[in-house]
Amino acid sequence: MIAHSFNHPGFGPAQRLHGATYVIDVTFFSKQLNEMQTVIDIALAHKALKEVLAPLDYQNLDELPQFEGQLTTTEYLARYIHNEVKKAVTGEFSGRIKVQLGESHEAWAAYES
Amino acid sequence: MIAHSFNHPGFGPAQRLHGATYVIDVTFFSKQLNEMQTVIDIALAHKALKEVLAPLDYQNLDELPQFEGQLTTTEYLARYIHNEVKKAVTGEFSGRIKVQLGESHEAWAAYES
Amino acid sequence: MIAHSFNHPGFGPAQRLHGATYVIDVTFFSKQLNEMQTVIDIALAHKALKEVLAPLDYQNLDELPQFEGQLTTTEYLARYIHNEVKKAVTGEFSGRIKVQLGESHEAWAAYES
Amino acid sequence: MIAHSFNHPGFGPAQRLHGATYVIDVTFFSKQLNEMQTVIDIALAHKALKEVLAPLDYQNLDELPQFEGQLTTTEYLARYIHNEVKKAVTGEFSGRIKVQLGESHEAWAAYES
Amino acid sequence: MIAHSFNHPGFGPAQRLHGATYVIDVTFFSKQLNEMQTVIDIALAHKALKEVLAPLDYQNLDELPQFEGQLTTTEYLARYIHNEVKKAVTGEFSGRIKVQLGESHEAWAAYES
Amino acid sequence: MIAHSFNHPGFGPAQRLHGATYVIDVTFFSKQLNEMQTVIDIALAHKALKEVLAPLDYQNLDELPQFEGQLTTTEYLARYIHNEVKKAVTGEFSGRIKVQLGESHEAWAAYES
Repeated sequence: MIAHSFNHPGFGPAQRLHGATYVIDVTFFSKQLNEMQTVIDIALAHKALKEVLAPLDYQNLDELPQFEGQLTTTEYLARYIHNEVKKAVTGEFSGRIKVQLGESHEAWAAYES
Repeated sequence: MIAHSFNHPGFGPAQRLHGATYVIDVTFFSKQLNEMQTVIDIALAHKALKEVLAPLDYQNLDELPQFEGQLTTTEYLARYIHNEVKKAVTGEFSGRIKVQLGESHEAWAAYES
Repeated sequence: MIAHSFNHPGFGPAQRLHGATYVIDVTFFSKQLNEMQTVIDIALAHKALKEVLAPLDYQNLDELPQFEGQLTTTEYLARYIHNEVKKAVTGEFSGRIKVQLGESHEAWAAYES
Repeated sequence: MIAHSFNHPGFGPAQRLHGATYVIDVTFFSKQLNEMQTVIDIALAHKALKEVLAPLDYQNLDELPQFEGQLTTTEYLARYIHNEVKKAVTGEFSGRIKVQLGESHEAWAAYES
Repeated sequence: MIAHSFNHPGFGPAQRLHGATYVIDVTFFSKQLNEMQTVIDIALAHKALKEVLAPLDYQNLDELPQFEGQLTTTEYLARYIHNEVKKAVTGEFSGRIKVQLGESHEAWAAYES
Repeated sequence: MIAHSFNHPGFGPAQRLHGATYVIDVTFFSKQLNEMQTVIDIALAHKALKEVLAPLDYQNLDELPQFEGQLTTTEYLARYIHNEVKKAVTGEFSGRIKVQLGESHEAWAAYES
């Protein structure tokens, strides 16, 4: 649950400070299963996502240094969270990761790499 | 998609300015169907809801005069929107109305009267 | 999956022959559980609903005698299916029943009695 | 919300005139974000989809010239709508597009190119 | 995620040891909002539900003493969890509570009191 | 609705006999539509899936010979069901198939080939 504003005339009313609840789904892709017959240890996946999201929840993104001067669109945030999750699981998981941010049951953006 | 903050120590991190996307469902209850075999003219229902929500979308609720000094929780907003929808359909519909605000697929609040 | 048209000027484009997929949910209410610790035998409930829906599926409702001269709105169909389900479970279940017809994930009508 | 029939013996009861509500999701894919940090201007996407769908909604597809002699299955319609959306955004978006038509929460077809 | 079996001939194949994933939704009803403009402190609600569910998760219910000789149907479990949640919030919340157990997106049971 | 246990210390409480309800979605991919303008005859797809799932429903997987000595994780089961469905449609469909097993609305695994 974050607040932010979009400093670009193309966004119309979304230039005002407003908010969003994101439902975040992370998918891990693998060609092989590990010895536990899983793609990734789900506890590790939960921990990584939790660490990445903790500094963002209930925040006004306009005031966070890592987003200074950025347009924090859903697409931008999907890529940002993807990159942070990738870093957080380095050494444990090296496959593709997809991060999807749902703004509502109707609109979403995702980044996969 | 709104921004707001909760000025009460019980809210923990939600005391900070943050945001929310609400998916809003309105239900109209009636003991009888009208001559079109409907509970309410759906065009009228859409129009009423649109008029009620327009002044709220992409806003920081902390800055709107109608919410001054209020804790704009999901419960509070459900009742506020319920009352505004009820006024907007006066003369056309007099039955019970339920307004539900979904914060995500996991949490919601509703007001019915 | 049915086709129908609405012979009433208030319906605008829905006066034309068009169609709908309905997702139908039936809820059975009871103050007590039976000796199997259930509200109703789910096999009986499935059978009743299947029998009621079979004559309607893949039909043009405008051509069915039971709907002659009727506006087969979602509300009307919810009550019609409710009444048929109630008859089909007579002797086995006497509590309240709710039938909900979802036109999509956004619009629905229900009848409860 | 459309009506149609399938003139092929393999379809069983779906050979009769029946109907469907489609929930249509369009996904736009891009390797880069534009200067607004989005994949596509969502207003443009909405406008394109609205223009493509307007001539189909509340129609009997059997009577529309563009579908004469065609089996308007969900798969066929997904490809048709995909091609029309692609044309409608030409000059503005040149990436892959996926169009998915959900018949219900259980069955869907999609076309991606 | 529990395992159980139903020792009653009416259950057919469900007499065998099998399992279920339940998605559990709890609704709290109130005529008035409290001074925080909420129905219940959501942290308290989470805590209560967590405490009630902890002894059940990843268990074979056939082996738990509190269910000895019981048919642990979805209906039975909804009432059991309802009663435990009610006890867990005693002193903090005295309104009606509804507990719904979803077995899948198609089947559910609920208890409200 | 199955029961199983995971005989590997990495699974924590899931080493106990527990259960799961899986919602199973199968997707068939094709570059061309057949003469019925479909990807696959949906009756054939239903029949294949039904045959594959029948021996698994309401079972304790720990006791089935085909899973002896296996960790029947969601990932493992997705691949197992995928392979069985592929065999069941041999001669009728030769494209890619994706099998997804949803444990709840929050967690799933899929296998595609």
